Amino acid sequence: MSLTIGVDVGGTKVAAGVVDENGRIVEKLKRFTPAGSPDDTIGVIAGVVNELLARYEVDAIGIGAAGFVDQTRSTVQFAPNLAWRHEPVKKLVEERIRRPVVVENDANAAAWAEAKLGAARGLEQVLLITVGTGIGAGIVLDGRLYRGRFGSAGEPGHYRVVPDGRLCGCGNSGCWEQYASGSALVAEAREFARRSPEAATRLLQLGGGSAEGIDGPAVTIAAQEGDSAALRCFEIVGNWLGAGLADLAAILDPGCFVIGGGVSEAGDLLLKPAREAYEHGLTGRTHREFADIRLAELGPDAGLIGAADLARDGTG
Amino acid sequence: MSLTIGVDVGGTKVAAGVVDENGRIVEKLKRFTPAGSPDDTIGVIAGVVNELLARYEVDAIGIGAAGFVDQTRSTVQFAPNLAWRHEPVKKLVEERIRRPVVVENDANAAAWAEAKLGAARGLEQVLLITVGTGIGAGIVLDGRLYRGRFGSAGEPGHYRVVPDGRLCGCGNSGCWEQYASGSALVAEAREFARRSPEAATRLLQLGGGSAEGIDGPAVTIAAQEGDSAALRCFEIVGNWLGAGLADLAAILDPGCFVIGGGVSEAGDLLLKPAREAYEHGLTGRTHREFADIRLAELGPDAGLIGAADLARDGTG
Repeated sequence: MSLTIGVDVGGTKVAAGVVDENGRIVEKLKRFTPAGSPDDTIGVIAGVVNELLARYEVDAIGIGAAGFVDQTRSTVQFAPNLAWRHEPVKKLVEERIRRPVVVENDANAAAWAEAKLGAARGLEQVLLITVGTGIGAGIVLDGRLYRGRFGSAGEPGHYRVVPDGRLCGCGNSGCWEQYASGSALVAEAREFARRSPEAATRLLQLGGGSAEGIDGPAVTIAAQEGDSAALRCFEIVGNWLGAGLADLAAILDPGCFVIGGGVSEAGDLLLKPAREAYEHGLTGRTHREFADIRLAELGPDAGLIGAADLARDGTG
Repeated sequence: MSLTIGVDVGGTKVAAGVVDENGRIVEKLKRFTPAGSPDDTIGVIAGVVNELLARYEVDAIGIGAAGFVDQTRSTVQFAPNLAWRHEPVKKLVEERIRRPVVVENDANAAAWAEAKLGAARGLEQVLLITVGTGIGAGIVLDGRLYRGRFGSAGEPGHYRVVPDGRLCGCGNSGCWEQYASGSALVAEAREFARRSPEAATRLLQLGGGSAEGIDGPAVTIAAQEGDSAALRCFEIVGNWLGAGLADLAAILDPGCFVIGGGVSEAGDLLLKPAREAYEHGLTGRTHREFADIRLAELGPDAGLIGAADLARDGTG
């Protein structure tokens, strides 16, 4: 059984795992990310990998990083939560561990993992949509990871769903993630609680008495209890999610959407309205087949597992 | 020099051409399409191909058809302007011409031609967007034609740009092609002429005195003369076009958009506002590279040339 190491580099922690061919994690280590120092971040990655290399026979190492990775999969051009700017991560880590290293965007790595070893295994056209604070995505087309011409593909969270719509952190307005993310869910609930506190008693209670105290888990808990205001919030966000999936299907006709990210833990509370809106909104729906909409299976380890598998595969 | 035959099957005519490796058409024949009869349509295709086979040494035949082609590229499932329903075109034509046949959607064939031999030759991530009555598209990703899981990819004309927007023939509302097509251009001009006839004298003159008489060429002619109402119509439609390209770039990050179709004959009248809206609307525009937006080069022969090249290539 061939083993590889996958490393997930985020703004707060570095997770490294030894992974087998079936995506099973044999051992996993975690370290804090010294995010302010490019060098120290490389040092922590090399350190944790070397620790694992001392105990396992490993062929290659894959690094999944939350940032823009260049087309040669060597350099992280820009990482919003790390100090890396045009950082030659592949070269620097290879110098310290003396094994081949592959660098990949973390959402791409997660999509690869779900398409090859997770919720969509066996399928060739798979879109992973992670619904968290914003919307992230990774795209597998015809069995291969799709990165785009300049490595910037897979940002559907910033396609425009409403002209002159809500302002987005990216500088545009009307971006999908302003309507179909966890932030949108929370904003919907808070706004409702402010507007109609008498109909939002349970939400306000879970929020510690104030609209500002309502967070994602509070909306999920209330919805799971059957609270109608919370359910309505999931419906609204689920509708936007499904309408966006219909748009993506018009363009890419995938066999499967895998929905991950924190909000997906609400399961059918999110997926039921999303599926309805998707089936209602898909162009040509009377004479075509529908993509499956499935929950992600690999959870927060997807990036690590995908990076490890990409290291084995060589290309993706 | 290896030769193949490309056939473009439309609702009104069948065009067949002998094409060399550089995409040059050596000879082309045209026949009327007996669109009402599935069998007769096959007969006309086989007849015109056999006529060319009598004069040229040809390796393979590619057929581009305006319809949904199945994943095995054998059967036309549905063609809006032909009587073909689940028609096994590959098998039926092969029986009559005794050469290998490849069947492809005509927009896919045209995109392949522009990416391999036309405006985007040498590029690996290319989206052909044809702006005519509606919006058609073909997608080349990582050097290969992308068809989707069920063969239905490449319908961005029906992604939703305006919630609860203009009704579309597909049954939905707010589809991109209701805002960025030739029909939208004409509708814009007619509506303006109805509302403000005193400011639309040139348009009305070209329309034979009535708003309903204004057609696409009329708007183009007026705009080319510098008529401000016509220029404004191109700006509006070009803005919608460019905003949509920005959305597609957020998702697919292509190296090049090739703009074809009848309206693209207006050139910069359409492309200038489209480029501006694209550059203004692209997410992350400060730290990424822009795709080129180019006019198509192969014109109405693109489908035929692409079908011929796909027959040579075997896969696309």
